[in-house]
Amino acid sequence: MNEFSLIDRYFKSLPIKRPDVLLGIGDDAACLQTPKGMNLIVSTDTLVSGVHFLPEWDAYDIAYKAVMANVSDMAAMAAEPCWLTLALTLPELNEQWLESFRRGLSEALNQFNIDLVGGDTTKGALTITMTIMGFAPSNQIVRRDGAKSGDVILVSGALGAAALAVSFLNKQGIVPSDRALLMDALLHPKPRVDLVHLLRLYATAAIDISDGLSADLDHICTASGLGACINRNAIPLHSLLPVYLGDKAVDLALTGGDDYELCFTVPALKLDSFMSEMKQAGMVCYPIGHMEPQPGLRIRMEDNRCDAITPGGYVHF
Amino acid sequence: MNEFSLIDRYFKSLPIKRPDVLLGIGDDAACLQTPKGMNLIVSTDTLVSGVHFLPEWDAYDIAYKAVMANVSDMAAMAAEPCWLTLALTLPELNEQWLESFRRGLSEALNQFNIDLVGGDTTKGALTITMTIMGFAPSNQIVRRDGAKSGDVILVSGALGAAALAVSFLNKQGIVPSDRALLMDALLHPKPRVDLVHLLRLYATAAIDISDGLSADLDHICTASGLGACINRNAIPLHSLLPVYLGDKAVDLALTGGDDYELCFTVPALKLDSFMSEMKQAGMVCYPIGHMEPQPGLRIRMEDNRCDAITPGGYVHF
Repeated sequence: MNEFSLIDRYFKSLPIKRPDVLLGIGDDAACLQTPKGMNLIVSTDTLVSGVHFLPEWDAYDIAYKAVMANVSDMAAMAAEPCWLTLALTLPELNEQWLESFRRGLSEALNQFNIDLVGGDTTKGALTITMTIMGFAPSNQIVRRDGAKSGDVILVSGALGAAALAVSFLNKQGIVPSDRALLMDALLHPKPRVDLVHLLRLYATAAIDISDGLSADLDHICTASGLGACINRNAIPLHSLLPVYLGDKAVDLALTGGDDYELCFTVPALKLDSFMSEMKQAGMVCYPIGHMEPQPGLRIRMEDNRCDAITPGGYVHF
Repeated sequence: MNEFSLIDRYFKSLPIKRPDVLLGIGDDAACLQTPKGMNLIVSTDTLVSGVHFLPEWDAYDIAYKAVMANVSDMAAMAAEPCWLTLALTLPELNEQWLESFRRGLSEALNQFNIDLVGGDTTKGALTITMTIMGFAPSNQIVRRDGAKSGDVILVSGALGAAALAVSFLNKQGIVPSDRALLMDALLHPKPRVDLVHLLRLYATAAIDISDGLSADLDHICTASGLGACINRNAIPLHSLLPVYLGDKAVDLALTGGDDYELCFTVPALKLDSFMSEMKQAGMVCYPIGHMEPQPGLRIRMEDNRCDAITPGGYVHF
């Protein structure tokens, strides 16, 4: 099997379901029909073996997680994902691995009605680069730089499970059922596309929590020319964090990445209305603090003292 | 310097020149304004160190060639390139290398009025994946599967220089000025975006010659459910091929990739009109054969004998 029959067997065979895909895999490029009144939203993410995932992971999980990391960037822009290209660099042609990868890819794409429309397959160190494309109404994209002083900072769900899974990957002393739960959070994140509609109506800024809450909130602060103060007690923690980390649970939630929840800001005057709409939609969000004019990140402790914190997260190089 | 300051210094600093880029590098995704009446054309290409380029090449040339390989896919669809994302995986942070890479990237993008709108920078084996986006009028994309029996097969320029450069890379016995000429062809290909307008009007199928004429023409044959017969004497050869290869020049032109000229088909009845418009535009194209109902590739020799040929080109795995 060469590169072309590999593409035919594993990727061209994935069904095209969207009517806006005029031409998918198999030509020099894909041909796509763009909707009127919408902006094209594009993001590229690379996952490197040994950095973003471990080579021993099931290829299903690697593909699944790669798609979800990309979908999460769409959610953070309040965009609806549509199309994906896959650049897959493989050290060898392992049919079992490819079949498993294909299943994970297919499952993840189906969940969000995304079509694989192109890509490239090459030989080299295992690396996966996906470019995801989606759409948002022209006047409703949510950027990182739109937060205003006084805006409420919210987080869309409990944090830290993925980071706890990473820190326990090679350790003993974890209850097997807990390990399964944490690994599921690490391998099968749930990007918050369900929030897109309400973000468009209420959010002034948004980012997905891929590097860690403090690092990602810091990006909103820097882009918006502001600072932030968050309440230590308000940060939503995955229920297993206090069990295994005690007092240090919050620290991991602040710096641990890979949760793919969203961190976003809503004007204080609109908070009640937003929370009530969230409730009606059967969803929960957690207000954790406020945007402030003074640059930098601060955390309010239980005794009401405010400490400066240094944003931390995964750093390449 | 971490990943974020690297992106800021080397990539975010590249100017956004196109008014249709509403938001470029620095958010979760880019936000782009799509033109009316056009289809979005998307292609992804990966260049792996040691496969598509040598690690000792100047980073300027690596970046330049990567862009050109992607632009060539746009030309092959008769699309105009607009936007690019760059996924750069680097083994180390070498500022001199990055500065050189940035210059090559900038030079290549400027030539075609393309803006870099996003990407990802990660640590790992040197790999470059670019996704290029462009547009073609809704009813005028040129696919691989549109060739009809009897259509004339054309090639947009002389072939084999890049492959000759590769075969001579580590050999003695080549005149230094010839080596410089060949390396320039290998490192600085000229994708044929200048042909896009006439392709839209005349071509029934097109592909760019990246794997080798025989392999790429075979893709048109397979996609169109046809075969092809080409005249050995009609294949346009780079002037240095006969000098260094004698009788074997044509073989290299048939199998050597990286030329990034176009191979395309035009209905026989429209050929005169096409050639006359080409001439008016100051361009030259070479008719090399015809599409035929019988599958497979054939080559007509000087003695008018017709030999079957096996399509050959670079094969991963």
